[in-house]
Amino acid sequence: MDRALARTWLTTAVEEARTGLAEGGIPIGAALYGADGTLLGRGHNRRVQDGDPSLHAETAAFRAAGRQRSYRGTTMVTTLSPCWYCSGLVRQFGISRVLIGEDVTFRGGHDWLAEHGVKIVLLDDEECIGLMRDFIAGNPDLWNEDIGVN
Amino acid sequence: MDRALARTWLTTAVEEARTGLAEGGIPIGAALYGADGTLLGRGHNRRVQDGDPSLHAETAAFRAAGRQRSYRGTTMVTTLSPCWYCSGLVRQFGISRVLIGEDVTFRGGHDWLAEHGVKIVLLDDEECIGLMRDFIAGNPDLWNEDIGVN
Repeated sequence: MDRALARTWLTTAVEEARTGLAEGGIPIGAALYGADGTLLGRGHNRRVQDGDPSLHAETAAFRAAGRQRSYRGTTMVTTLSPCWYCSGLVRQFGISRVLIGEDVTFRGGHDWLAEHGVKIVLLDDEECIGLMRDFIAGNPDLWNEDIGVN
Repeated sequence: MDRALARTWLTTAVEEARTGLAEGGIPIGAALYGADGTLLGRGHNRRVQDGDPSLHAETAAFRAAGRQRSYRGTTMVTTLSPCWYCSGLVRQFGISRVLIGEDVTFRGGHDWLAEHGVKIVLLDDEECIGLMRDFIAGNPDLWNEDIGVN
């Protein structure tokens, strides 16, 4: 995809991540864009804020988009490589593309998605890396809880 | 696992599925049991009721259980074979076992989970099969929407 558009869409997810951080939460953000470029939904991780472990950023954005008849042509934008839960979401609902801010601090299931026909656009965004690196260093237990490491 | 216990736990998920059906929703229910047999959370598909596509039954039960430090030893009980989204949930959070009512009307990712060390207990429950068979026959579009088929 066009790099300038990718950067613009990633900005939406980064804004969500920063909102989550400001709320005392885990700084991961996501946004779901339609085939025509319309923003369908956006959200961020809400484990801390809502005490809800199911609201990873991608699920929050998917939920905010409401019921859709089809996800063909949609793009899930996320600041961080999607975990298995969020990768499964993308595969099950036929989301066509995933735009990822970084996979340096955590590497989820995006190779598996690529094997199953999902287009992956991986940036190496320093802002996304910095957000997670700082958060993990300061909150290792919370981070491990969020990814089921124990 | 003990078959009598499996039947008892499945009953919880079936009750959830029937509650969902009575609400006009998709009749899939789930429950998360702790390593010591405590019921941690239960829920059912809420796509229709809440207009929320993220609340598959397994995610609803996981959400209802709130934040947990570890899922080691837990069992996800579900009336229907878990889709990729819910299979990803099980894998990411290290849920140890999945007890499934049936995989006749829909077959999700439970073989993949077994390959990755999750213990699978598959029943061939006629009540679960009947609930889904009737629902799918009467609501094919809604069912396809719920599993991303379009």
